[in-house]
Amino acid sequence: MSKVVAAMSISVDGYVGGSDPEQWFPVHNRVHGWVFHLAAWRERQGMTGGDHTVSSDLVAEEFADTGAYVMGRTMFDFGEEPWGEQPPFRVPVFVVTHHEREPLHRIGTSFTFVTEGLESAIKQAVEAAEGRDVFLSGGASIVQQAIAAGLLDELHLHQAPVLLGAGIRLWDHIGPGWKELTPIRVTPGNGVTHLYYQFLR
Amino acid sequence: MSKVVAAMSISVDGYVGGSDPEQWFPVHNRVHGWVFHLAAWRERQGMTGGDHTVSSDLVAEEFADTGAYVMGRTMFDFGEEPWGEQPPFRVPVFVVTHHEREPLHRIGTSFTFVTEGLESAIKQAVEAAEGRDVFLSGGASIVQQAIAAGLLDELHLHQAPVLLGAGIRLWDHIGPGWKELTPIRVTPGNGVTHLYYQFLR
Repeated sequence: MSKVVAAMSISVDGYVGGSDPEQWFPVHNRVHGWVFHLAAWRERQGMTGGDHTVSSDLVAEEFADTGAYVMGRTMFDFGEEPWGEQPPFRVPVFVVTHHEREPLHRIGTSFTFVTEGLESAIKQAVEAAEGRDVFLSGGASIVQQAIAAGLLDELHLHQAPVLLGAGIRLWDHIGPGWKELTPIRVTPGNGVTHLYYQFLR
Repeated sequence: MSKVVAAMSISVDGYVGGSDPEQWFPVHNRVHGWVFHLAAWRERQGMTGGDHTVSSDLVAEEFADTGAYVMGRTMFDFGEEPWGEQPPFRVPVFVVTHHEREPLHRIGTSFTFVTEGLESAIKQAVEAAEGRDVFLSGGASIVQQAIAAGLLDELHLHQAPVLLGAGIRLWDHIGPGWKELTPIRVTPGNGVTHLYYQFLR
C-alpha cells in the first residue's frame, strides 16, 4: 500500500529556506547542500561521480520507493526550465496550483496540474503510484498543509548542522493539537543527520 | 578544560514549554517525560528503581561531567521549594537574576545569585567547576542568550517525538548570523532522540 511521505532538508532551528530574497540561494545551498555531492542524487540528475555514502543510499532508497510526486506551484515554477526535457523524477508528478493547465509530458515523467487542492492531488498520486509511495517534495507550504490535514504517513527530516536564526520555518501553520510521532530512523550522515518519523494515523 | 554545555528537552517542532499557562504542565510532561523513568535520573532525585537504558547512561554521563550549573531565575523559583533540603545538583549552582540575594546553602550544593548577567554567571561557574563542565539547565531564555552571545561549546538536544504546534520556541531570539554546528552524538533512545552538537568557536 502506498505511504504518503514528505521529506525536507531543514536547519537545526527549523528553517527550510530563506525568507529574505537575498538569502534564498545561500540558505538553499546551506540546507540542501548535503545532497549535491551524493552519487545517487547526481545519477538522477544525469551526472556521473559523487560519493557513495549512507546518505546516498538513503536518497537512492527514496527514489526507488517513490511511485509519484506531489509538489507546490512555486517549486514547479522554479524547476520547469532548469529541469529541461528529462526532469529528475521518472514517475508522474502532480502540481498543486490555482491555475488550470494541460498536462505536460516530458521524458520519463508527466506533470498534472491539480486545481482541487492538496488532498485531491495526493489521491491522484496514490492511484498513479501503483502501490509505491507518494513523495511530497515541497515547498514548505505543501508540507505544512499535509501535516495540518493529517495526510502524512511519514516525515523524513534531513537536518543540516547549522542554526540560521531566520528564514521560512517548516513548523509554522501545522495546525493546533499535538501530533504524536514514532522515530523510524536515526542515522548520522556526512554533514547531515537523517531523522525519519512515522505519524500515528 | 571546562566546556559550557546547554541541554534542552525539545519537541520535533522546536518547543521546550507551553506558552499558555494551562498548557505548562502538559507540555512539560510531554517534552521532559522521557527522563522521569530513567534509573540515573531517579537516583539523583533520591528515588530507587527505573530503567537502565542508553538514555539513562547519557543522563548519568551528564551528571558525572558537570562541575557547576547555571540556571535562570524562573527555573530556580519553580524549583526552590520542591527541591527541598537536598536539591538534585551535588555541585554549585549559579542563578542569573536581577534580585540580589545572599547565597543559599543546601546539602551537597549551594545557590549563588548573580546579578551581573549570564556571562558573569558562566565565568563564576567555570571557576567553581574545577575543570569539569558547566551545565546550563535552562530555561529557554538563558539558553537563547548563551547561543546569541556565542558562549556555548555544546548543545545537547533531547528530542521528544511529537509536534506540539504551539508553545515557547527554543529557536527564537538566538541572534542574527549563521552558527555552524558539528554533530557529536546521534543516538536513538526510548521515546526520545539524543542529538548532541558542538559549536565552532
